[in-house]
Amino acid sequence: MIKEYRWIAADGAAGRRQEMEAINLRRELEGLKDHWSPRVVGRVNDQYIKVAKVKGEFTWHKHNDEDEMFLVVYGKLVLQFEDGEVRLEPGDFYVVPRGKLHNPVAAEECGLALIETVTTLHTGGVDTPRAKSIAEQLAG
Amino acid sequence: MIKEYRWIAADGAAGRRQEMEAINLRRELEGLKDHWSPRVVGRVNDQYIKVAKVKGEFTWHKHNDEDEMFLVVYGKLVLQFEDGEVRLEPGDFYVVPRGKLHNPVAAEECGLALIETVTTLHTGGVDTPRAKSIAEQLAG
Repeated sequence: MIKEYRWIAADGAAGRRQEMEAINLRRELEGLKDHWSPRVVGRVNDQYIKVAKVKGEFTWHKHNDEDEMFLVVYGKLVLQFEDGEVRLEPGDFYVVPRGKLHNPVAAEECGLALIETVTTLHTGGVDTPRAKSIAEQLAG
Repeated sequence: MIKEYRWIAADGAAGRRQEMEAINLRRELEGLKDHWSPRVVGRVNDQYIKVAKVKGEFTWHKHNDEDEMFLVVYGKLVLQFEDGEVRLEPGDFYVVPRGKLHNPVAAEECGLALIETVTTLHTGGVDTPRAKSIAEQLAG
C-alpha cells in the first residue's frame, strides 16, 4: 500500500510538493493487490504514469481519442488485435494507437507500466466490473 | 543503428503503419553510439518516447512549459537540482517538473528512457553543442 503520492500534478493542489525521491516501478507493483486495477504513480505533462498487475484476459476495447503505452516490467504480455498480436517481454513497450481494438492477455502474472492521457478510462468506456474510475486509480 | 521507425505518429504520414512488434528499450539503447544524443523510438499521444545513453555531466537547464520523465534502464543517474538531488537506479523514474532547473549526471554510462512533449528541446533552449534538434533525434 502506498502511503502517499510522491508526485505533483502540473496544476498541483496547494500543499503538495515534488518529493525528492525516485519512484521504482517494481516496488509500486508490489504494492498492488488486485489484477487489472491500475494505480496512478506519476504524471508527465498531460499523461498519467500508471502501474498494473495483470493476469488472464482483460476485455476487448478501444480508446477513440488516445494512444496507450504498455511497458512490461516483469512477466509477459500479449496484446491481441483483430489483425494480429504483439508479444511483449520485460523491457519491451508497445503503443496501441487510438481507435484500435485490443485485448491484453497474460498467461501468468505480468507487471506493467502504462502511459495514458489523464482522461483515458482503461476499459475504453466498455462497461465491465473491471472498469476503475480515475479516482479509484488515484486512490489505489 | 535502427533501420526504420516502428511506430506511427498520431497524425502519421501516409504509408507508415504500426508495426506488429514490440520495441525493447535495452536493444534500442544498444543501437546508440553517442552519449547525450537522444533518439525518438516511439510516440504516445503528444509525448515522444526517447532513449539516451548518458555519461558524465550534461548541462544545467530547464523546460519552461514541459515536464520531463527520466526512467533508468541500466546504470545510475543523479538529477541535480538547486535544492537537492534525486538518485535513480534501474527501474526508477522521476518526473522533473516544468520550470525546474536540473542537471543530469552519470558517473558511469547509464541508459535512459525519456518521455517528453514532442516540442521539448532536450537542453531546454540552452545553446550548447550537445543540443540535438528533434530532426536529429528522429533520424538517430
